[in-house]
Amino acid sequence: MAQQHLDPTNRLAEPAGPASPAGPVPAEALTCYLRAQATEFLRALRLHRESGTGANGSSGSGVGDGSAGPVDAARALRRAARRLSGTLHTYQPLLDADWAEGMRPELAWLSGTLAMEHAYASRLERLLQALHRLSGSSAFPARRQVAAAAVSATLPAAPAPPDRGNLTVGAAKAGALLDRQLTLARTRAHSTALQALGSSRFHAVADKVALLASEVPLRATADVTADLRSLAGAAEGRLADAVAALPLVTAGHPYNAEALIHGLSPDPAPHPQDAPWHQVRLLLRLHRYAREVLAGEDGPGGEDARLLTAGEALDRHRDASEAAAAAAQAARTPRIAPATAYALGVLHADQRHEVEAARYAFQHDWQHRGARPAPAQ
Amino acid sequence: MAQQHLDPTNRLAEPAGPASPAGPVPAEALTCYLRAQATEFLRALRLHRESGTGANGSSGSGVGDGSAGPVDAARALRRAARRLSGTLHTYQPLLDADWAEGMRPELAWLSGTLAMEHAYASRLERLLQALHRLSGSSAFPARRQVAAAAVSATLPAAPAPPDRGNLTVGAAKAGALLDRQLTLARTRAHSTALQALGSSRFHAVADKVALLASEVPLRATADVTADLRSLAGAAEGRLADAVAALPLVTAGHPYNAEALIHGLSPDPAPHPQDAPWHQVRLLLRLHRYAREVLAGEDGPGGEDARLLTAGEALDRHRDASEAAAAAAQAARTPRIAPATAYALGVLHADQRHEVEAARYAFQHDWQHRGARPAPAQ
Repeated sequence: MAQQHLDPTNRLAEPAGPASPAGPVPAEALTCYLRAQATEFLRALRLHRESGTGANGSSGSGVGDGSAGPVDAARALRRAARRLSGTLHTYQPLLDADWAEGMRPELAWLSGTLAMEHAYASRLERLLQALHRLSGSSAFPARRQVAAAAVSATLPAAPAPPDRGNLTVGAAKAGALLDRQLTLARTRAHSTALQALGSSRFHAVADKVALLASEVPLRATADVTADLRSLAGAAEGRLADAVAALPLVTAGHPYNAEALIHGLSPDPAPHPQDAPWHQVRLLLRLHRYAREVLAGEDGPGGEDARLLTAGEALDRHRDASEAAAAAAQAARTPRIAPATAYALGVLHADQRHEVEAARYAFQHDWQHRGARPAPAQ
Repeated sequence: MAQQHLDPTNRLAEPAGPASPAGPVPAEALTCYLRAQATEFLRALRLHRESGTGANGSSGSGVGDGSAGPVDAARALRRAARRLSGTLHTYQPLLDADWAEGMRPELAWLSGTLAMEHAYASRLERLLQALHRLSGSSAFPARRQVAAAAVSATLPAAPAPPDRGNLTVGAAKAGALLDRQLTLARTRAHSTALQALGSSRFHAVADKVALLASEVPLRATADVTADLRSLAGAAEGRLADAVAALPLVTAGHPYNAEALIHGLSPDPAPHPQDAPWHQVRLLLRLHRYAREVLAGEDGPGGEDARLLTAGEALDRHRDASEAAAAAAQAARTPRIAPATAYALGVLHADQRHEVEAARYAFQHDWQHRGARPAPAQ
């Protein structure tokens, strides 16, 4: 893989699918892409302002009043910010260095800040769905009943009779506890996002994006006829190297029980094993965005669809990893009932197995990524 | 499958491997097998008595004083009793009806009683190993330290600081609690087994087995030239029908998350899904014993080895199912600490995933059971 890394252009020999035209891709494709994403950013921002960023934040599931408008707008804003940031990273040698280096962390700050509220909301949703599944559909109270039960979730545990019923109480109490903790975190993230969108720091970013929509600051020494493919190939090389370092053989053996190893460890960071997968997730996203630049108006091809599927497995990996951590964190709440703690333990292990399942799915998608129908004999 | 059940002889058309000679197998093979197993039963009983069934039972891991002798002898006794009982069942139409019907429940009682102590010991071993794996090797106290900690396992929970360390305390306390409960159960099973071996009921069984070693009571109307294969085929048919009713397609999809469904259910029997697999395990064993009768002195063939592998997956299924139930049962102990309950929840879910993994392994073994190398094109 070191050779591939040193010579990123060797990716060009690989079949790249219909999204990558055969000829060289000039820098113009980069400027077109950046201007299109900047325009999309500004459109989402206008939509977001029009749909209101009212004070009724605690009921919303996105920055705004909770209706679909601001949620969609916030998602579109994050989407454009991620693409701008990633593209600046991959194609930086062609862009004005000071401008790109100043712009990237600001875009990353913005998309990261906007993502938190959604992350807490979907984490809670995932955990409540899992509790629902683990409890049988009739036994687990629906979302609203859980919220009502939240008040008593951390009261001192009354001695419970040793019957099976208290485990179901445990599932309901665990749901209420998670609801309380993650709703609080989401509300805080909502406030933080609202503050960010009203800050001078944000307005400075928005102004820069507005300029970008009309003119892309290329590096003075950049060769505008240079082929973008070599930089895209370097991004692909970084991804390939990171994937090669993953334990894919283990992940390809079902029920390898790797993800739950050290599930009860005293180590304050018990799952460093997740980090390389998170890193591949980010590099895969950069690779996808780099291909979007090359594809231009051709749109995504079959290879891009396969990359998207592999990326979704890594999204599930990340989501399950963080949900498992949230369950473990909730179990550390003082004075919870044993039945609540038991349910959180089952839930934690369930989500760690989701982590393992996502790794299995990724390795499968990745191995079959380049598969073409075999030619007829 | 109904057709196969009605016409068990259609199994004969299938490739049966080197363990089944091509020609008919006369009733003499049955009498030889029963006499051999009866002799083995008596040998194991003599060995058991010679190696001592002393009063030092609580430290033993088999009926006896804990040394290998009585453990091996008890295992050999169970092994012969299971084979005698299973063979009486499969080939009952050829045997004296009153004798066989009176003998079978006594042999089942004996092998069941002798099996309990071993079952509790191996269940504890499985659960402690799982806790060890989940805690990281250095964090979890070894077997003896666990026993020392058992005293405090059910004391009222002191308010613990909300740090990660208490989960490790939880794993140690969970291990101590399981050790206490399962060691108590094992000690009781040991006493029950000792009482059984000294009872007049056992002596009556042993006397009957001694008679069997010299003469097998065939049914008066039995045709001694009858082919044993049709009765063995009926046993295989019962197995095939039961396997066909298993959800093998689901089991063949890794990480289907079926085994943990209703893991927090209020249902007092939350895992009725396990029962058909337990039933297949018993039918597979009967099929294996029926084949042993047919094979006679030829010994087991390749097909038997494959059946053994499939049976081992079902043994793992049963063991993990019962270990998961023991962890859930321990979590219902009154006044345990939340950290203990959390660890038991993780452990329960871990063992339910072992259940799922065993089903996956079984369906794989079963599908590839009859696989032969493909002929060269």
